[in-house]
Amino acid sequence: MNADLRSAALGAAPFASAPVTLSGWADAMRARVVRALDGALPASDEHPARLHAAMRYAVLGGGKRVRALLAYASGELAGADVEIVDDAAAAVELIHAYSLVHDDLPCMDDDDLRRGKPTVHMAFDEATALLVGDALQSLAFGLLCKRGGKAGAACCALDGIALLAAATGSRGMAGGQAIDLESVGAALAWPELEAMHRAKTGALLRASVLLGVIAGQALAEREKDALETYAKAIGLAFQIVDDILDVETETAILGKTAGKDAANNKPTTVTLLGLLGARQRAEALRIEAQAALDVFDRKADRLRELADFVVLRKY
Amino acid sequence: MNADLRSAALGAAPFASAPVTLSGWADAMRARVVRALDGALPASDEHPARLHAAMRYAVLGGGKRVRALLAYASGELAGADVEIVDDAAAAVELIHAYSLVHDDLPCMDDDDLRRGKPTVHMAFDEATALLVGDALQSLAFGLLCKRGGKAGAACCALDGIALLAAATGSRGMAGGQAIDLESVGAALAWPELEAMHRAKTGALLRASVLLGVIAGQALAEREKDALETYAKAIGLAFQIVDDILDVETETAILGKTAGKDAANNKPTTVTLLGLLGARQRAEALRIEAQAALDVFDRKADRLRELADFVVLRKY
Repeated sequence: MNADLRSAALGAAPFASAPVTLSGWADAMRARVVRALDGALPASDEHPARLHAAMRYAVLGGGKRVRALLAYASGELAGADVEIVDDAAAAVELIHAYSLVHDDLPCMDDDDLRRGKPTVHMAFDEATALLVGDALQSLAFGLLCKRGGKAGAACCALDGIALLAAATGSRGMAGGQAIDLESVGAALAWPELEAMHRAKTGALLRASVLLGVIAGQALAEREKDALETYAKAIGLAFQIVDDILDVETETAILGKTAGKDAANNKPTTVTLLGLLGARQRAEALRIEAQAALDVFDRKADRLRELADFVVLRKY
Repeated sequence: MNADLRSAALGAAPFASAPVTLSGWADAMRARVVRALDGALPASDEHPARLHAAMRYAVLGGGKRVRALLAYASGELAGADVEIVDDAAAAVELIHAYSLVHDDLPCMDDDDLRRGKPTVHMAFDEATALLVGDALQSLAFGLLCKRGGKAGAACCALDGIALLAAATGSRGMAGGQAIDLESVGAALAWPELEAMHRAKTGALLRASVLLGVIAGQALAEREKDALETYAKAIGLAFQIVDDILDVETETAILGKTAGKDAANNKPTTVTLLGLLGARQRAEALRIEAQAALDVFDRKADRLRELADFVVLRKY
């Protein structure tokens, strides 16, 4: 029996033959995750309608979907059922969306523009924005339970939930935000700033890669180690590039207020390493991520392309 | 082999012989859940220390622990391993604590007193309080993954997580809060207010009972139905009694600002049904909850006592 027939016999949905270019593949995967998010979110006329409309506004308003793309790429590498990766990809996008809604609140970064549109608390109100973030977090964890009913899938689902909970909580994203708050006006050294970035942004990006892996077949230890190295490098590189873009790019292209970090007197990669130093650091991480993938053959090409995308992007 | 020996052979920890009185049992169970919470929360000197100190302040500052008690009582009824119930009880208390921290924020109820102490945003600051709530929610879901590694336990853990996610999100607690926001100054009818209470408070209380059940042995359908009826009745009764106490009790005894609902022009059970009507409704729910337990023998006595406690409590 060939691999496709075996997948069909197991009821699994393999990834379709991949489109050749990264942008074609990325568009197809973005469409998949948006469909998964649309299906997971309550309808905007379901009671309480204002909350549900605001949740959809927060989640479905565009975005690069980098976290989802990482989950799809690593899931494809690990031979995962693409429908299981849909849930994982949607879950990490829900967590990311919740974090943006809360970060934009007046008591945090106090931002009124996100993805080129008014932030949730501007378009709705602060209390609704608070509840939107809270409810999106619950929804993400609920979504990861969905496929656990399949035979043998419960342990994987549980591993994924534990991973996402750790990446999201006080030792991950929320903890990174707390360090960020404390760092306003402080003279951080690079190791401290790197630790903050790894928690604030890196933890969820790492989890996105690993959730795709968990959804697939068991990999060898050295393959898992390679993806761990890749995921950590990409996670940090992403935030460094964000810091560079915050300085270099206009608000209209960025879709969020540019120059915020300097205005808020926040230490960033650029203030600490300079623009050139920050670019060199991002490039070194790209090379580190690519090198880690050497244990894989062409199957890891999407992850290689995503490393390029993360570091070379312009918005 | 008798039941105790069998439990020991399986590595399970049965509930200890129960103390006779409710208050003795409740004190013992409160001590258990506080120990579980203390172990689950990062140390207050772990980086980021301010966030972790605030999380511990929010969670370990007392409280009736009604949700934990419901989980322990139903877990005992279902013959659960008490250590698995520890995690479930701690998880529902973490969710409850997160909801209090967020509800007290200025953009929500704007309250400065909780459990007789300054609320988290008063003792720390608003941004920290926001992150405390966010991180406590992640911690709750992570905690429910802990015991899933035991053979056969993954499916149960996953059922519990799905249940808690549903109870916490936009169709549960967060949704109830959203309805509550919309209802300020509105002329709600009793069915609408009841629906709000069932979501805002009832969903998590119901989940507390059912998480204890999931941790134990499979019950017969009619037994599960009975506990479902019990849990729903108790959940609604709890909020009705809260509304009564908000009118009748002084701030010093309540540990939170009394008379808030009237001051905020919020419809409550008391404004809609009157004080006598509210008391009658709570009493009817207590009787409904007790009657549902008729399918059980004396094993359900703790749940019977908790129904009395919820309705007859003075704070």
